[in-house]
Amino acid sequence: MTYDMVERITRSFESQSMMKTLGATIHEVEKGKVTIEAPLLPSALQQQGYGHSGLTFSIGDSAAGYSALTLLPEDQEVMTAEIKINLLAPADGELLRAEGRVVKPGKRLVVVTSEIHAWKKGQTKLIAIMQGTMVPVPMNP
Amino acid sequence: MTYDMVERITRSFESQSMMKTLGATIHEVEKGKVTIEAPLLPSALQQQGYGHSGLTFSIGDSAAGYSALTLLPEDQEVMTAEIKINLLAPADGELLRAEGRVVKPGKRLVVVTSEIHAWKKGQTKLIAIMQGTMVPVPMNP
Amino acid sequence: MTYDMVERITRSFESQSMMKTLGATIHEVEKGKVTIEAPLLPSALQQQGYGHSGLTFSIGDSAAGYSALTLLPEDQEVMTAEIKINLLAPADGELLRAEGRVVKPGKRLVVVTSEIHAWKKGQTKLIAIMQGTMVPVPMNP
Amino acid sequence: MTYDMVERITRSFESQSMMKTLGATIHEVEKGKVTIEAPLLPSALQQQGYGHSGLTFSIGDSAAGYSALTLLPEDQEVMTAEIKINLLAPADGELLRAEGRVVKPGKRLVVVTSEIHAWKKGQTKLIAIMQGTMVPVPMNP
Repeated sequence: MTYDMVERITRSFESQSMMKTLGATIHEVEKGKVTIEAPLLPSALQQQGYGHSGLTFSIGDSAAGYSALTLLPEDQEVMTAEIKINLLAPADGELLRAEGRVVKPGKRLVVVTSEIHAWKKGQTKLIAIMQGTMVPVPMNP
Repeated sequence: MTYDMVERITRSFESQSMMKTLGATIHEVEKGKVTIEAPLLPSALQQQGYGHSGLTFSIGDSAAGYSALTLLPEDQEVMTAEIKINLLAPADGELLRAEGRVVKPGKRLVVVTSEIHAWKKGQTKLIAIMQGTMVPVPMNP
Repeated sequence: MTYDMVERITRSFESQSMMKTLGATIHEVEKGKVTIEAPLLPSALQQQGYGHSGLTFSIGDSAAGYSALTLLPEDQEVMTAEIKINLLAPADGELLRAEGRVVKPGKRLVVVTSEIHAWKKGQTKLIAIMQGTMVPVPMNP
Repeated sequence: MTYDMVERITRSFESQSMMKTLGATIHEVEKGKVTIEAPLLPSALQQQGYGHSGLTFSIGDSAAGYSALTLLPEDQEVMTAEIKINLLAPADGELLRAEGRVVKPGKRLVVVTSEIHAWKKGQTKLIAIMQGTMVPVPMNP
């Protein structure tokens, strides 16, 4: 991963106000793989006090999208065409970590997956898996 | 829809801090159908300035979940087992409205769909569709 | 729907040996909507004697794909990029009917849904819903 | 894997006439993982001469379902509640092999994935991935 790729993804990430609202940060960037973390903020919970599925989805989707972006030319962005999430366990703990990966690169479609783990008192648990399709689009000038 | 059902859903909804963070409100509750609205807040955007997919997902998932809840006994809650979203157009405008519906009720699984529209200067556009499975669970005492 | 469109879809359909194996036939072709039927043949069952999910999927996917094709130029074909199925009830009866529809047309992606009903002794039951993405591709010369 | 489990899965598999129609066979059974193979028969093709998506789906879904069954008590069967497939490449070659795996076991829901490869002249290619939910049900007496 060149410095430019990390910088490009960081810049895009920081321009997403939703990521700031959720307290999310980029943890790691590799070719075809991006990891995003978010704390379980008091402002992002569901009715039982666990992390909201919208939080899990948001960082899982972003990690998957940025993993696709690592494989695209510099003048392109990426949009989610569709994605599916299976929720396996409540988002319980202090931190969520989403790892997005490219399964199949392509010029028109990039197929991706994401795994989201919760960290609680030093222990980690798989809480969701995602499978979806990203679409490369020309970057806004 | 009895008053109690609306009250029950409103109470559950208000205990979700994520919904407050997104500025979401319940718009309508019917048997098997719930509508939720959210403004396109400056704090819930993606890198191009449109609403974040996590916002669209959050209200679409909640509308679908609460539509399932309208058909369940009072001592039960509902959790999302899985759900898929197809994003059709950018979340552009002032307001999003998600309409969740029960397609197939059941004791163990409730199959649901959600349609999300964006409102911009008085015009409405379908921006996402969702299809998923809700699971009834006993309410926390 | 012009005669040519119906003929074009019929010709494509008849070149799918899988459709012949399943006994499937085109029931109706409209702009943006195609209906396919298949009998519950003894050769397409699962272990409990109901229709196999692969049968339900095959006709639901084909109906959705051909509904997309009705909106495309003549020199294009369509391929399934991804599709999700929720099975609501066993495929029980004499006949399945799948109705595919275009939700969102597009040059690069066409978003579709499909509903599959089973017919048993004159009664009909919704047994599956599908949501997915078709991709237009140039026709083989 | 005890002999009984293999026998139980083999017996269930052989009672699915659809598997016979597609020429599918069980290749391997482990705890939480089942592999199914199918030749690319002339009777299971789509309009371009590749394997039909319904064939890919059928063996991928069955492999996933049987992987769930390996973790369930003997008096239970398994049904597909929902499953999603992303098609990555045409089903081109002589043979398809689907490997189903349990991601998250459970009494009410079992979350599964499936990977389907095509074999052509000794080379193998990933052509589809699936992610879904199986539901344990009591076996018919």
